[in-house]
Amino acid sequence: MPAPDPLRPANPGPEPARPARPARPVERFAARTAGMTASEIRALFAVASRPEVVSLAGGMPNLAALPLDSLAAEVADLVAREGQVALQYASAQGVPALREQICEVMALEGIRADPNDVVVTVGSQMALDLVTRIFCDPGDVVLAEGPSYVGALGSFAAYQAQVVHVAMDEHGLVPGLLREALRALAARGVTPTFLSTIPNFHNPAGVTLAVSRRREILDMCAEQGVGVVEDNPYGLLGFTGQTYPALRSMEPDVIYLGSFSKIFASGLRVGWALVPPAVRDRLVLAAESATLCPPTFTQLLVSRYLAAHDWRSQVKTFTEAYRERRDAMIAALEAYLPTGFTWNIPDGGFYVWVTVPEGVDTKAMLPRAVTARVAYASGTGFYADGFGSRQLRLSYCYPTPERITEGVRRLAGVLEAELDVVRTFGSGPRPQLRRGPQAPSPDTT
Amino acid sequence: MPAPDPLRPANPGPEPARPARPARPVERFAARTAGMTASEIRALFAVASRPEVVSLAGGMPNLAALPLDSLAAEVADLVAREGQVALQYASAQGVPALREQICEVMALEGIRADPNDVVVTVGSQMALDLVTRIFCDPGDVVLAEGPSYVGALGSFAAYQAQVVHVAMDEHGLVPGLLREALRALAARGVTPTFLSTIPNFHNPAGVTLAVSRRREILDMCAEQGVGVVEDNPYGLLGFTGQTYPALRSMEPDVIYLGSFSKIFASGLRVGWALVPPAVRDRLVLAAESATLCPPTFTQLLVSRYLAAHDWRSQVKTFTEAYRERRDAMIAALEAYLPTGFTWNIPDGGFYVWVTVPEGVDTKAMLPRAVTARVAYASGTGFYADGFGSRQLRLSYCYPTPERITEGVRRLAGVLEAELDVVRTFGSGPRPQLRRGPQAPSPDTT
Repeated sequence: MPAPDPLRPANPGPEPARPARPARPVERFAARTAGMTASEIRALFAVASRPEVVSLAGGMPNLAALPLDSLAAEVADLVAREGQVALQYASAQGVPALREQICEVMALEGIRADPNDVVVTVGSQMALDLVTRIFCDPGDVVLAEGPSYVGALGSFAAYQAQVVHVAMDEHGLVPGLLREALRALAARGVTPTFLSTIPNFHNPAGVTLAVSRRREILDMCAEQGVGVVEDNPYGLLGFTGQTYPALRSMEPDVIYLGSFSKIFASGLRVGWALVPPAVRDRLVLAAESATLCPPTFTQLLVSRYLAAHDWRSQVKTFTEAYRERRDAMIAALEAYLPTGFTWNIPDGGFYVWVTVPEGVDTKAMLPRAVTARVAYASGTGFYADGFGSRQLRLSYCYPTPERITEGVRRLAGVLEAELDVVRTFGSGPRPQLRRGPQAPSPDTT
Repeated sequence: MPAPDPLRPANPGPEPARPARPARPVERFAARTAGMTASEIRALFAVASRPEVVSLAGGMPNLAALPLDSLAAEVADLVAREGQVALQYASAQGVPALREQICEVMALEGIRADPNDVVVTVGSQMALDLVTRIFCDPGDVVLAEGPSYVGALGSFAAYQAQVVHVAMDEHGLVPGLLREALRALAARGVTPTFLSTIPNFHNPAGVTLAVSRRREILDMCAEQGVGVVEDNPYGLLGFTGQTYPALRSMEPDVIYLGSFSKIFASGLRVGWALVPPAVRDRLVLAAESATLCPPTFTQLLVSRYLAAHDWRSQVKTFTEAYRERRDAMIAALEAYLPTGFTWNIPDGGFYVWVTVPEGVDTKAMLPRAVTARVAYASGTGFYADGFGSRQLRLSYCYPTPERITEGVRRLAGVLEAELDVVRTFGSGPRPQLRRGPQAPSPDTT
């Protein structure tokens, strides 16, 4: 196939001047709100969250294995003994003891960091949002994998950055395509502000950036004066216990984002950014504008958990459950999906990325799937440019293996019906020779 | 004195195009970061937080009276029985049960609200930041009291809004001066995006907007098509148990911001916005970009606290402590401050606003005060335009009455020394006829 046009229309960037102002002040929104759109699943949320629907749509971690009784004792002790501190405001940068522990967590992926360079945030979503805030002017170009994390696209849109997607294959971001995108942008006089990447167990594509590509991509960005934002919520969730050297471990100017949402508990909303000293003060100021300080209480709870529990064994327990679920999903895809579908087999993380035959529109199909009591995330949500209607993301993180099997069975039924319609009324699908695990990205298949 | 010029230079608004880009991508910041500045106390923080320094600078609530043992039992039960929910992601808008309880809290100030119009945020700071995000384009004008809450000014600067201050007197924002500011702006073709106001027990000025002025101000804004953002973290902290009708209770298009930081616990970071239905969806989308969702855990803890504890009695206990501290501070000001100083006597909240004689610069004096083991907040931090060097904010919320007395005694010593310098080397202070409780705002004294 031809190389993708790295400059294909992305999200629209800054709006022109507002039209005549509405009479009510509360209806006069800032131009940046034009890029804020609800995810497709949201409209179906009330239906999709009914217990009879198998949701393969969300990215909720499975917390069933958490030791709730000992956590209850821990948090009670925190309130009883340190309540005056835990319930009080604290520093905008985050609790110092936790920042030290975060450095120990990052050391598992080869990062040597100073706790002074860590900024604790309300989930790594807030870190992404603030990094965009301090680096992106309206109209700035951000490079991101195609597909990309939907929350990152939301923040880029909120600050009116334009997204240029760079495709992946089964080894992650393709260096040659990145080079091509950089060259095309340079020809227009554009230097992207940064490359936003999820190198490990990608959301939504499920792939991991080959270690052999990492240095090459870092060098390319350095040569072109492009920053790198490494978003790594899944790095410790490899199914064979393997970890990969973080981009940040190879290049100190990389901005690294981490999270306890997947290795401990998402509802505490504790994430972080590790940034070069030149960035830290501005990031802290931005954080102060955003929330004054992150919740002291949840920070101290995470800190105690890391100190008192064998959290690495707990992560192992989590990943064993995820591997079992991944196996159930792959087996069900093999068993139920007809010819013409491709997907990847992830080595970690939460997601399988499926490409459907031409003629099937995953966005249009979603309401019919929910009617058939299965939900997924349409691929279009993971692109800033409307691409992705032949892709869908399946999450195996939350439901039981039995529910996953049943969900894929239901999904296969919906897909069969779609294919029938395509065969009957459409131009018919083109011959699809492949089936089963393949490269994740539509741009390179 | 002459009426203040409502158009005096405010923060600079959008920057011109960036100069030549620095070589390192991590040093190329967005234009909006130019307006982000550290508070003056920050540089002194390490010193000012030493135990031997009496800090009258911060706004930390006094949590000593919290029932930590029963809270510990409550939170342990939350983890043990509802841990799978409390530790998991939840809706970006906030937990429904808590949104219902928030409506009951607001009813105490006359607000009738639908829980569907409440958006839970990470402290009301996040609500302020997101409201600015969805309404303010760069260069937009925001009206705010002079002086204003420093965190609001931080968010306005982060979104490159220009602040025009409107002065207060002892009854809060002066309607005539608001009219004048609106007229002057209209002559330039400018409609302010909104008026940001703290009507009750103002931070930093300590005053409350007279009930008789509220309707007038709302009508003026409505006539001119100016939105109103009512920030009300202190409304339930009146020393005689009085509450005032919220602006939102008089006008449904008012955007209302509330917080549990001062009536329960600041370290949980639970606040909210009540917005008209026309605003809700965009605010939720903005919140999703900012943090995905607020921490489920802290929301459920607040919800249980409201349900299981006599939280209104607890607020009464808090305000009794604050009243005692207010009395200690006022008595110390009366006892120790020389002629030439004025201050207000707040009926609630956390703050006393002091005006010093001409020739004394509160910002320049701060390091000397910290050396003398007392800290305060210089008035300049509460203006977007460098005004406020003859004002300072004293907080009586956190230290004990004895520490407050000692802190004011030390401060008086520093001020005496400053006045000596002014008398010896300066042109000398002009005759100051007044001393003691007066109107809070420099603009009208």
